[in-house]
This record gives sequence, C-alpha cells and structure tokens, in this order.
Amino acid sequence: MTKRIAIAGATGAVGRIVRQLLEQRDFPYESITFLASARSVGKTIEFKGELHQVKLLEPSVFDEIDIVIGSTPDDVAAEFAQWAIERDAIVIDESGFHRMLDHVPLVIPEVNPHAVEDHQGIIASPNCSTTQMVMCLKPLHDVSPVKRVIVSTYQATSGAGVQGQTDLIEGTRQALDGANWNYQAFSHPIAFNVIPQIGSPIHEGYTSEEMKMVWETRKLLENDSIEVCPTCVRVPVSNCHSESIVVETESPISAEQARQLFEQAPGITVVDNLEMGHYPMPTNSDDLDDVFVGRIRKDISSPNGLAFWCVSDNLRKGAATNAVQIAELLVSGRYSSCGTSS
Amino acid sequence: MTKRIAIAGATGAVGRIVRQLLEQRDFPYESITFLASARSVGKTIEFKGELHQVKLLEPSVFDEIDIVIGSTPDDVAAEFAQWAIERDAIVIDESGFHRMLDHVPLVIPEVNPHAVEDHQGIIASPNCSTTQMVMCLKPLHDVSPVKRVIVSTYQATSGAGVQGQTDLIEGTRQALDGANWNYQAFSHPIAFNVIPQIGSPIHEGYTSEEMKMVWETRKLLENDSIEVCPTCVRVPVSNCHSESIVVETESPISAEQARQLFEQAPGITVVDNLEMGHYPMPTNSDDLDDVFVGRIRKDISSPNGLAFWCVSDNLRKGAATNAVQIAELLVSGRYSSCGTSS
Repeated sequence: MTKRIAIAGATGAVGRIVRQLLEQRDFPYESITFLASARSVGKTIEFKGELHQVKLLEPSVFDEIDIVIGSTPDDVAAEFAQWAIERDAIVIDESGFHRMLDHVPLVIPEVNPHAVEDHQGIIASPNCSTTQMVMCLKPLHDVSPVKRVIVSTYQATSGAGVQGQTDLIEGTRQALDGANWNYQAFSHPIAFNVIPQIGSPIHEGYTSEEMKMVWETRKLLENDSIEVCPTCVRVPVSNCHSESIVVETESPISAEQARQLFEQAPGITVVDNLEMGHYPMPTNSDDLDDVFVGRIRKDISSPNGLAFWCVSDNLRKGAATNAVQIAELLVSGRYSSCGTSS
Repeated sequence: MTKRIAIAGATGAVGRIVRQLLEQRDFPYESITFLASARSVGKTIEFKGELHQVKLLEPSVFDEIDIVIGSTPDDVAAEFAQWAIERDAIVIDESGFHRMLDHVPLVIPEVNPHAVEDHQGIIASPNCSTTQMVMCLKPLHDVSPVKRVIVSTYQATSGAGVQGQTDLIEGTRQALDGANWNYQAFSHPIAFNVIPQIGSPIHEGYTSEEMKMVWETRKLLENDSIEVCPTCVRVPVSNCHSESIVVETESPISAEQARQLFEQAPGITVVDNLEMGHYPMPTNSDDLDDVFVGRIRKDISSPNGLAFWCVSDNLRKGAATNAVQIAELLVSGRYSSCGTSS
C-alpha cells in the first residue's frame, strides 16, 4: 500500500534526518512532498537522486497528501495539523503540541504500537528525553511493573535546535579566547558550563521539559500510577542525550536479568563493561538509531531498585527515527506486531 | 596558640589554594613550611610578601612541624603521614588514603566538628563530591533523619588534577579544529562528551568515586543505615562539581522548610529562583568557598522526598577550604562550636 507522503519542516535539522531515513529504509511512497515556511520555499532538495522544490506549508497542499511527518515548532504544528486532517491526511507530529491530548495516540513503535490503531488523524511522537527512557523502562515494565523513576539528564545542545549547536561551538571558541559570545538559544553560557533548566517552570518547581518526562511516560506505558522525579540539565555536548536512571519495580529485577531484558529488547543496544571502560557516551552513540544502555547495576539504596545509564541520538530515535517508524507502522497496517517485547 | 605549620603538596592545584586561604583568612602561625616532591624542590613561593624555598617532603622536616595540611596523591599521603605522626605532628589529609580508617576522624567542620577531638594524629578531609552533598544533607538530617539519597554528579575536569583541565582545554581546541588530542587524565575524550565513570570499579558495578559517596556520607553523618545510590559522571566543565540530589527523610520536609534550613546553614548559599533563571552553575560558583543550592522542590515521586541541585568549587570547599577550616578548628581548640546548625 503506497501513499502520498510529505515532510513538514523538511529543511530543519530533524527534517533532514527524516529525509535520510526515508531514503535509507526504502520507505514505500507514491509521491513525496517537502514542505517548509515561506523562508525556505524554492530551495531544492535532492531525494533518491531526484531534485524536489520545497513547497509552502499551506492548507491546499494537503489535498494531495495521505501522510505528513511534521518536524516543526508547536505553534506551526497546531496550525498545519488542522489543515491536514480536514483534508483526510494523517499527521505524525514530532512537536509537543498534541502529545497529551486525550484523542491523540502518543507512540513509540517498540513500546505501544497498538495505540496507532485509535488515531483520529494525528499521531504524536514523544519528547526526545522521554523516548530513550521509556524505551529502557518498557522491557522492565513487562516483567515487573515500574513504580517509580528518578532520572537526571545530561542533554545535548542540539535539543535546542541548530542555534543551540551554534551557540555551543561559537560560545566555546570565544571562551577559549577569553571572549564572550552572545547566546541565542540559552539564557546562560553553555560553554564549559551546565545549566539545570530546560523549558519553563510549570509545575511545583519543575520545568516543562521535566513534566514531559512525567506525563508522557505514564501515557506511553498506559499506567497513571507511575511516579517520575526528573531533573533536566543542559550540558556542553553537541548531540546525544545521556540519562542517569534509577527505577523501582514492583518486584526486584537483578542487574543480570535487566541486562538480558535490554539485550533482547528491539531498538536497544547494551554497551556495558565497566572493567573495560565500555559504556554509552555521546561520542559513541552519535548518528545511530538505537538507544544505548550501560552501567547496569543494582540500586544499592533500595530493595527493588535498578540503576543504569542510557544515551541516544536525540535527533534520531528521539525525533526523526521514531516518527519514520510510526509512518512505517501506518503504511504496513501491522500495528500490533512491531517488535514489542511482550 | 600559634603553631609551626606546613603544606605538603604546596605546589599543586589544591596546595596553591591552601596557601591563598591561609593568607586571606589570616591563619595564625609561628612558622610556615612548603613541602613538595623532589621535582619542585628549590622553587620559590611568595607568602605574605615573603619568599620561601620549597623543601623536600622527607621524614626529618617534621621535627619542626606541629600541623601539616596534605594535598597529595594517596600513596604519598600514606608515607608522609607516618613520618609526621612519629614526630608528633598532626596531619590534615585531603587524600583518600586515611578517610575510612576507624581511628581517623573524617571531618567537615560545619557537619561534625566534634570528631576532631578523637584524632590520633591524622584527620581526613572527605572527597569533593561527598563534601558538597553532605553539607546539604546535614541541616535536613538534623530535622528529620536522612534515609536514602539518590545522586547523579556532573563533575569538573579539575577533579582529575591540572592535567584534567589541560585535557579539557586542549582536547576542546583540537576538536574544534577537527583534530584529535592525546588524553592523559581520561580514558575517553572529554571535549563535548560526558563520561559515566570516575575511578575504578570496586563494588557491585559501582566505581571507587561512587562508593566514596556511600561510605563517607555514613561516616560523616554517623549513621550506617543511610542508603546512597550514586552515579558519578565527568562533564566538559573546567572547575566546580554539580550534583542532582533526591533525598528521602524519615518524615517529609517541604521545599519551603528545606529552603529555610539551607539558608540558615553555615557554608551554604541558596540561589533558587527558577522563574528568574537563578540557580547555581559552575560559572557562578567558581572560586568561591560556599556550597550553592537551588532547584529546591518536592520530590514528586515519593511522599518523603526532596529534590535539589548543588554546585561547589571542588578545589575549594571540596578540598582546600575544608582542610584549612579543619586546621582552624584544631588551632582554636573549639571542636564543638564551629557553626553546627544543631
């Protein structure tokens, strides 16, 4: 079953990776359209050896589209999604706008593919920091329900867009020369610094980025009793988010059992040999689609706790890869067989 | 009561700060001696406007010393401490060698000054990552006993010595030019990366740095039932360690109460206004003696939990400042009145 597909935000950092993935994974399509804001209209994109003009993201383009993958800011997503569904196109939205709406499935294909079934025109892809964590929680949750998660993140500047990466590189160059850089994406210097705030304050001293990790985790694992205590921190890394995670499950899961569960889980690669200095880091996870897990060990502070470290390319599994996987799920029609570990 | 004092490791990064602090704080002394390994012997150090020759760290120098502050590697500390105590000098040791020995008090003057009383010639200063955490735990512990701590660190390269800082700066310069740097202090690149290992594996998948945070916390708070789950991570920051901490106490402590306790605690400065973007970071904590606390909030994942973020200059309160404070305590003879909050 081939479809007329489109990418909204095709010229952005994530849109570029979506294009690469559609090429590499040989995504089946009848036609492909690249959409962007007025600023990028007229640019040329090469896709599978053919040149395509970037078209304006406007209502009428969706007359000829079946599925659109959107990598846009929230406000743009809010607008174009309406244009699309009014014209019977299905939207796969990577923005934060639709994720927590009751009628919108929030989907990680390895975690809850069945949720796609109930879509009413929009399917949301989770926030990057949530996706890699829930990818790791799922195989544990299937064996013993997750009760509580304490997570501290080490998030890359690419999560703040291309400007975030520019700020890091140029800010660092200036700092090395003893000069100042006028940061655009961050309200404090990120060069040789860590910033314990991502997003804006929204709930009892927690930021929007942190509360995404609470609310989206519950929706993805379909369990509102899961408690999450997140601390989201920006670090001077260009790409790939890292997370230090402690999880408490209903009954204990040993480090050995967890290692086996992670090894068997689709989309997870275990890199875990502390004696040899092997663990995931941004430098060895960049530009790869998997979620990488290491430092797997018993939480020595609680009977049912497990501690681990996970790293993933936030632009790939945290955004582009997950969206393309949702599109593949839609096109294949096999919503309940996409490599769940249960 | 003035003393003949010495600094062992006087030419190192921490030794340099010890010298500054002794000058600035007008530490009383009869004579002062600067000791180092053969490599540095003969160098000249200016102290209070006078020039001093660096002397060799050897047994006989301790014939004329009452108190020695040591900022040396573990193996050097093991050796010189014996020379010193055999000659009735008191050793304040910043290395890890003596900390967990039963007969050696491990002291943070704001936390357990009374422990100094029982010394048998050696007093140990805790590891940097432990000190700033326990400084924050103490005022909470005094109100409701600490049961469990989950901590993820963001540790600066200065913790790995001057070479660690050189590796960061030169490695970053090379990385910006697309070149490689031959790292000496780290087994992986630290430029634009995070490394989830500090120290060597020693206990059930935990590293030596992590187990210091478990064992030293119990000794400092004099409570072996406190459970700690640490994850120690090196980040590309030159100086100042940051820590994301979740603490569970016997009865709940509200964020408001915790903020008041921190504000009243000696050696702690609260920097906590998320709405205004105010919180501690390496850039605003560098070269200061206090422990800085922010992001103080209820742990939304447990009834008795509290979450916060703390940053401190690991070369100062994490090492030099704490050692000088111990020396001041010794000289003053007031072991039980050094600003405890109880």
